[in-house]
Amino acid sequence: MSKGTVILAYSGGLDTSCILVWLKEQGYDVIAFLANIGQDEDFEAARIKAEKLGAKKVFIEDLRSEFVEDFIWPSVQANAVYEDRYLLGTAIARPCIARSQVEIARREGAQFVSHGATGKADSLTLSVGAVQIIAPWRIPDFYNRFRGRTDLMEYAQKHGIPVPVTPKAPWSMDANLMHISYESGILENPKSHAPADLYLMTKNPEDSPNTPDVLEIEFGNGVPLKVTNVKEGKSKNSPLDIFSYLNEIGGKHGVGRIDIVENRFIGMKSRGIYETPGGTILLQAHLDIETFTMDKEVRRIKQGLGIKFSELVYNGFWYSPECDFVRHCINKSQENVQGKVQLSVFKGQVYILGRESPKSLYNEELVSMDVQGNYDPCDASGFIRINAVRLREHHRLQGVSSIKK
Amino acid sequence: MSKGTVILAYSGGLDTSCILVWLKEQGYDVIAFLANIGQDEDFEAARIKAEKLGAKKVFIEDLRSEFVEDFIWPSVQANAVYEDRYLLGTAIARPCIARSQVEIARREGAQFVSHGATGKADSLTLSVGAVQIIAPWRIPDFYNRFRGRTDLMEYAQKHGIPVPVTPKAPWSMDANLMHISYESGILENPKSHAPADLYLMTKNPEDSPNTPDVLEIEFGNGVPLKVTNVKEGKSKNSPLDIFSYLNEIGGKHGVGRIDIVENRFIGMKSRGIYETPGGTILLQAHLDIETFTMDKEVRRIKQGLGIKFSELVYNGFWYSPECDFVRHCINKSQENVQGKVQLSVFKGQVYILGRESPKSLYNEELVSMDVQGNYDPCDASGFIRINAVRLREHHRLQGVSSIKK
Amino acid sequence: MSKGTVILAYSGGLDTSCILVWLKEQGYDVIAFLANIGQDEDFEAARIKAEKLGAKKVFIEDLRSEFVEDFIWPSVQANAVYEDRYLLGTAIARPCIARSQVEIARREGAQFVSHGATGKADSLTLSVGAVQIIAPWRIPDFYNRFRGRTDLMEYAQKHGIPVPVTPKAPWSMDANLMHISYESGILENPKSHAPADLYLMTKNPEDSPNTPDVLEIEFGNGVPLKVTNVKEGKSKNSPLDIFSYLNEIGGKHGVGRIDIVENRFIGMKSRGIYETPGGTILLQAHLDIETFTMDKEVRRIKQGLGIKFSELVYNGFWYSPECDFVRHCINKSQENVQGKVQLSVFKGQVYILGRESPKSLYNEELVSMDVQGNYDPCDASGFIRINAVRLREHHRLQGVSSIKK
Amino acid sequence: MSKGTVILAYSGGLDTSCILVWLKEQGYDVIAFLANIGQDEDFEAARIKAEKLGAKKVFIEDLRSEFVEDFIWPSVQANAVYEDRYLLGTAIARPCIARSQVEIARREGAQFVSHGATGKADSLTLSVGAVQIIAPWRIPDFYNRFRGRTDLMEYAQKHGIPVPVTPKAPWSMDANLMHISYESGILENPKSHAPADLYLMTKNPEDSPNTPDVLEIEFGNGVPLKVTNVKEGKSKNSPLDIFSYLNEIGGKHGVGRIDIVENRFIGMKSRGIYETPGGTILLQAHLDIETFTMDKEVRRIKQGLGIKFSELVYNGFWYSPECDFVRHCINKSQENVQGKVQLSVFKGQVYILGRESPKSLYNEELVSMDVQGNYDPCDASGFIRINAVRLREHHRLQGVSSIKK
Repeated sequence: MSKGTVILAYSGGLDTSCILVWLKEQGYDVIAFLANIGQDEDFEAARIKAEKLGAKKVFIEDLRSEFVEDFIWPSVQANAVYEDRYLLGTAIARPCIARSQVEIARREGAQFVSHGATGKADSLTLSVGAVQIIAPWRIPDFYNRFRGRTDLMEYAQKHGIPVPVTPKAPWSMDANLMHISYESGILENPKSHAPADLYLMTKNPEDSPNTPDVLEIEFGNGVPLKVTNVKEGKSKNSPLDIFSYLNEIGGKHGVGRIDIVENRFIGMKSRGIYETPGGTILLQAHLDIETFTMDKEVRRIKQGLGIKFSELVYNGFWYSPECDFVRHCINKSQENVQGKVQLSVFKGQVYILGRESPKSLYNEELVSMDVQGNYDPCDASGFIRINAVRLREHHRLQGVSSIKK
Repeated sequence: MSKGTVILAYSGGLDTSCILVWLKEQGYDVIAFLANIGQDEDFEAARIKAEKLGAKKVFIEDLRSEFVEDFIWPSVQANAVYEDRYLLGTAIARPCIARSQVEIARREGAQFVSHGATGKADSLTLSVGAVQIIAPWRIPDFYNRFRGRTDLMEYAQKHGIPVPVTPKAPWSMDANLMHISYESGILENPKSHAPADLYLMTKNPEDSPNTPDVLEIEFGNGVPLKVTNVKEGKSKNSPLDIFSYLNEIGGKHGVGRIDIVENRFIGMKSRGIYETPGGTILLQAHLDIETFTMDKEVRRIKQGLGIKFSELVYNGFWYSPECDFVRHCINKSQENVQGKVQLSVFKGQVYILGRESPKSLYNEELVSMDVQGNYDPCDASGFIRINAVRLREHHRLQGVSSIKK
Repeated sequence: MSKGTVILAYSGGLDTSCILVWLKEQGYDVIAFLANIGQDEDFEAARIKAEKLGAKKVFIEDLRSEFVEDFIWPSVQANAVYEDRYLLGTAIARPCIARSQVEIARREGAQFVSHGATGKADSLTLSVGAVQIIAPWRIPDFYNRFRGRTDLMEYAQKHGIPVPVTPKAPWSMDANLMHISYESGILENPKSHAPADLYLMTKNPEDSPNTPDVLEIEFGNGVPLKVTNVKEGKSKNSPLDIFSYLNEIGGKHGVGRIDIVENRFIGMKSRGIYETPGGTILLQAHLDIETFTMDKEVRRIKQGLGIKFSELVYNGFWYSPECDFVRHCINKSQENVQGKVQLSVFKGQVYILGRESPKSLYNEELVSMDVQGNYDPCDASGFIRINAVRLREHHRLQGVSSIKK
Repeated sequence: MSKGTVILAYSGGLDTSCILVWLKEQGYDVIAFLANIGQDEDFEAARIKAEKLGAKKVFIEDLRSEFVEDFIWPSVQANAVYEDRYLLGTAIARPCIARSQVEIARREGAQFVSHGATGKADSLTLSVGAVQIIAPWRIPDFYNRFRGRTDLMEYAQKHGIPVPVTPKAPWSMDANLMHISYESGILENPKSHAPADLYLMTKNPEDSPNTPDVLEIEFGNGVPLKVTNVKEGKSKNSPLDIFSYLNEIGGKHGVGRIDIVENRFIGMKSRGIYETPGGTILLQAHLDIETFTMDKEVRRIKQGLGIKFSELVYNGFWYSPECDFVRHCINKSQENVQGKVQLSVFKGQVYILGRESPKSLYNEELVSMDVQGNYDPCDASGFIRINAVRLREHHRLQGVSSIKK
C-alpha cells in the first residue's frame, strides 16, 4: 500500500531522478512538478523522463508571469539587495516555486512535498504549507546511501535512469528569469578568479557593443509599467515582457555581474557569482524614481524596511508574518512612486540620464533660489544656529572640541 | 579701529574676492585661507590676488594627506553612501577645511571665520569651533546688495577686483581629491541629460581603454595600505599616493559617474552629478574584504551605523557627539578587516575578482560539506523545524496561510 | 482697513489676552478659538472675556472625543513613549488643536492663525495648514515690547484686560485629558524635588486607597473597546468614557507620575514633571495584549516604528508624510491585537494579572511540552548547533574566546 | 575505562542528582560544579550529597561579585529590557555560570560540560567554550528513559539518591541575585492570576511599609559607585554590597514584580512572572542620569544598541562577536554618564526626585531663556520655517493635507 503521494520538485537532472525512483522504492506515489521560472530547460524531455521513471503524473507549470509580478516586483519596490550587493535571484524564486508546489499538493490531495535541495531555505519556505516535507538530503537513509556523485551514478545505472553524458561543470548553477548563480566546485576558493566562460546570461563587457542602448522606464506604484528603447522606439508593456526585455538589453551589454562572499542564514560564509541583468537595471531605475517622488524621511524609514525585507527573503521567510507586514508597509510607501526614468546601458553599466514625474517632490524654483543664495537667508541662519545649540553646549560642557586634530 | 580679524575661506574666484573687499569695508582685518584639498587650482595666483585685494596674510594649506587619512579613510570604513548612491565627496571635505580654518583662527587670535558658501552645512560644521561665523550670503546687508552676478561684477570693477574673462559654466562645480560635483544652472531640470563634456575627472567610458587594469588592494583595519597594478607591478603605499592612484586608474576607465536627485538637509530635493573614481573603487573593494572578514551579525549592526554616519556627514554633523560615537564604533568594527582584494577596472565598472585574508571567516571546508549535502543534516532539519514552529503556529492561529495566491 | 482675520488660540489667560488686544492694535480682526481638550477651565468666562476684549467671534470647540479617538488611540497602538519615559501628553494635543484651528480658519476664510506659545512645535504643527502663522513670541515688535510679566501686566491694565488676582504658580503648567505637565520656574533646578502639592490629576500614593481596583480592559485593533471595574461590575464603552474612567481610577491611585529630564527638539535638555494616569494604565495593558497576540518578529519591527513615531510626535511632525506612513504601518500591525487584560491599580502602580484573546499566539500545549523537556529534543539540538557554527568559527578563526575573563 | 571527565552544573536537586548518577553509569567521571550567584541554597549540603553520589570533586564557586560587575553592570549601562518589560535576570546569569564552568573544565582538563537545563540558551552559551556539551534532556537515551517525574523518583530510589520530601511547587523557579522567575505549572494558563504567596524576593506592596525610603545613587561610567539611604545616612560602596542593598530596599517595598507573556528565542510565547527589585531601581536611576548627561542623538543611537543587546542576551548570544561589539559601543557611550540621582522607593514604585552631575548637559540658563520666550526668537522661526519647507512642499505637490479630518 502506498505511504501517500509526494509532489516532487523535479528538474530532470540526475539528483531528482534518483530521488524520484528512491521515493517510489520507499513506497510513495510520486507526482513530478516542474516549475518554469524562466530557466533554460527542455521541459518536454523532462516530462517524458519523469513518466518513464514512474511518476504518476507530471505537472509543468509556467510560473514566469507570477514570478515577475508577485515576487520580482515587490523586490523592486523594496530595492532589495542582500548585504549591499546580492539581488536575491535565488531567494525570491523559492517562494514562487513553493507556492505552486503546495497548491498542487492541495489540489491532488498529496500529503507530502519533496525537493532535491540541500539548502535550508527551501524547506523553511515550504514549511508553512499544510504538508509534510521530505528532504532526502537530510534523511540519514538517503544521504548515507548516496555519499557522492558516484553513488548516484551507480544507482541510476541500476534503475534505468539516464545518466548525463556531458561531464558536470566544475561548479553548480541555479538559473531563473531573474538571474543565474554559480557556486561551489572550483569557485569555492575565494581567491581564484571566475573563468571567463562561466557566464551564460550576460555578454562579457569586453565583447559587448560599443554603443549604448538608451531606455525609458515608466513606473507606477513603484513597479515598471512600460519600457521603451528610445532610439529604436520599441516598447514593452506586460510585466513578463518588460522584465524579459530588460534581461535582453542588460545581457547584451554585460550588466549585473558580481562576485561576492555572502553570509548564509546558517552562519557560514559562501562565495557566489551572480548575473542579474534586468534586475540590476531596474534597481538603478527604481532608486532614481523613488528618491525623486518620495519624501526624504519616508525614504529613510523605508530604506530600513527594505534591508529587513532582503534579510527575511534571503533567509527563507517570505511566508512569515513579519515579511507580510514589511511588504505591506513597503507597498504603501510606493503609492506616489511613479514617473519615467531615462537611462543608458553600456559595457556593464547603467547610467541614469534624467527623470520626470507628475508626483515629483523636486521643486526647480526652490532649488534655484537656494543656489543663488537668496533663499530666506535669515531662516537658514536660524536653522543652523538652533542645530548648533546642542553641539556648542556639548563641546562647552563635556570637554575638548573634536574639531582639533 | 578694526572690528577684529576674519579668517576667510578664499578661493580666488569672484565671490570670495568681493567678500574679501566687502569685509574690509565693514571694518575687519582679513586673512585669506586657501585649502588645498586636491582641487585643480593656481594657488600662487590666488595668493597674489588676495594680497593685492588687501588680505593681511594669506595661508595656503596643503590638506590633501589629512583629507585622505582623517576623512576619506573613515568614510571607506563606513561604506559611506548617502541615500544609496552619493559618496559624500563634498560633505567630507567640509570638516577638513573647517578644522584647518578654525586652527588658523586660533593660532592667529582671530575671532571670526567667514566663507562664501550658501550651503547650510558649511556654517554648521564651523559652528563647533570657538569662533563667530560671518556668512555674508546670509547677512541682509550683503545679500541685498549683491542680488546677482551683475552686482558682483560691478562691485568688482569698482574695487579693482579682477573680473573673470572666460564665461561662467552654465552650472556650478565643487572639486576636491574625492570628487567633482556639478549642479544648478542647466542641470536644474531633472529631466535634461548632462552634457557629455561636463566631466573633468573621468573619461567617457565610450572613449576609455579597451583593456582593463587589474588592481590588488591590501587593507588593514578597514583602510587601504597598498595598491598594486597587477599587470604593471607598480604599487603605492602612502594614503595620498594610494588614493591619487585609484583616482588615476578610475578616471582613466570612466569609473564613478552618477546622476542623482538627492534630499538636502533642509528638506528640498536637488539634482547633482558626481564623479568619484577612486572612492568608487574603494567602496567596492572595502565592501568585499569587510564581508569576508567580519562576522555576519556585526556586519548588520555596522551597516546601520554606516547609514547613520552617512546622514550625519551629509547634514554637516561631522563634529558632533553622535558622529564621534558612530565613528568610534565603526572603527572598532574594522579591527579584523584586513586582507587583499583583486579587482578589474574597465569601462566605468569595477569587478571584484577574488580576495584573501589571514582574518577570513570563510571556511572552505565547511562550505564544501554543506554543498555536498552531508553537513550534519539532522542539525539542519532541527534548525529548520524550530524556525518553522513560529510560522506554523501563526498560520494555524491567526488565519489563512499567506502562501495562497 | 483690516490686515485680515486671525484665528487666535485663546486660553483666557494674561498672555493670550494681551496678544488678542495687540493683534487688534496691529490691524487684524481677531477670532478667539478655545479648544476643550479636557483641561479644567471656565470656557464661558473665557468667551465673555474674549468678546469684551474685542474678538469678532469666539469659538469654543469640544475636541475631547476626537482627541481620544484620533490622537490618544494611535499613541496607544504605538506604545508611544518618548525617551523611554514620557507619554507625550502635550505633544499629541498639539495636532488636535491645530487641526481644529486650521479648520476654523478655512471655514471663516481667515488667512492667519496665531498662538501664545513659545514652543517651536506649535508653529511647526500649524505650518502644514494653508494659512500664515503669527507667533508673537517670535516677532521682534512683540517680544521686545513684552520682556517680562511686568510688561504684560502694565499693558493689560492700560487696555482694560482683567489682571489675574491670584499669584502665578512658581512653575508653568499644561493640562489636557491625557496629562498635566509642570515645568520651569522653581522646577528648573534639576536637583530640587518637586513640591508635594504640585500634582492636580493624581493622588499622592501615600494617601491613596489601601485596596486596589481591578480592571478588565478589552481591546480590538489595538485600542480599548471597553473597561470594566471587576469588583464593582461597572463598565464604560465609548472612547471618551473609557479614557476618562481610566484617568479617574489612575488618579485615585496615584498612577503615572514621572519626573524627568528630556531632550527638546531644538537640542536643549529640559526638566518636566508629568502625571498621566489613564495613559499609563493603557500603556501597560496594551503592551501586554500586544505581545500576547502579535508575532515576535512583527513586534520587533513595530517596536522600532513606535520609537520613531514617538520622536516624530514629540518634535511636532504629526502632520508629516513620515508620520502618516508610520501611523499607517503601526495601525496595520494592530489587526489582531484584541482580547482582554486584567490588571490591578494600586499605590501608583499597575500590575498585570492575566490576559486572554481569541487571537492569542500563545500555545499552552507547546509551552508545556517544552518545559517538560520532551519537545523535539533533536530539533532543539540541531537548532543550537547550527546557531553555534558561526560562534565557534569566529572564535576559532579570529582569536581568543571572549568567554575568558 | 572512563569516557572522560564531565563538569556537571549541579544544583543538589532531583534532576541533576539523577544526571550525576546517570553520567557515571554512562562511563564518565563527574565533577560537580555549584555556582553561587546569589540564590538561596545550602551549598554545603549539596556538596555532601554530590560526594555521596560519586562526584570525583565538587567545586562551589562564589560568583556573586563577578555576576554583578561583569554581567549586571553592563546590563544597567544598556538599560537592558527585553520586549519592553523583562529585565533579563535569568539570561544574564547564564554566561556568568558558563564562563566559570568552562574555566573549571579547562583547569581540570575535562572534555565535557553538562547541565540539567532544557533551555536552549544554556547550551548555546556554553557552545563557545572549547568543550563538548552533554545535555541529557536532549539525548534520546536519557529523555526516553526519564519521561516524567515518576521515572526520576524511581531511578533515585534505586540508586540511593535522596528524594525530596516536600511536594514540588506547582510551578518552576529560577533564582539569583538579580531576580526570581516563576513559570510553568499552574502559571501556564495566561489568564489565571498568580497566587499571592508566590513571591519570595519582594513584599506584597499591600503589606509593605507606609513610608518611603529615599536613596541617592551615585554613578560613574554608567554604573553605580555608591548608594546612600538619605534618611538613615547608611551607604554602600562595593558593587555586590550596592546591588544587595538595592535588592533589600526594593524587596522591602515590593518593587519589580511583573507578569508577562514573552517571546522565546525558539519562537513560542511563554508566560513568566518575575521579581527584580534592585534591578528595577537601577534601571530607573540609570535612565535618569543617562538622559541628563548624554547627548540626545547619541542617546537615540545607543537606545537602539540597548534593544539589540537585550535581544542578544535573551537569546543566549552573550559570547558572540556581535554582543562583544555592542557591549563595547554601549560602554563607550557611558563615558560621561556620571552623577547622582535621588529617588524614593515606595509601595512597588520608584520615583525619581532629582539629579545632579558634573557632566550634565542640562543648561538651566538656556532653558530659562527659552521658556520666557526671549531665546533668539528669530532663530527659532528660521528653524521652524526650514523644517516646514519639506512638509509644505509635500502637501502642495502630493495632495490633500493630512491635517484634514
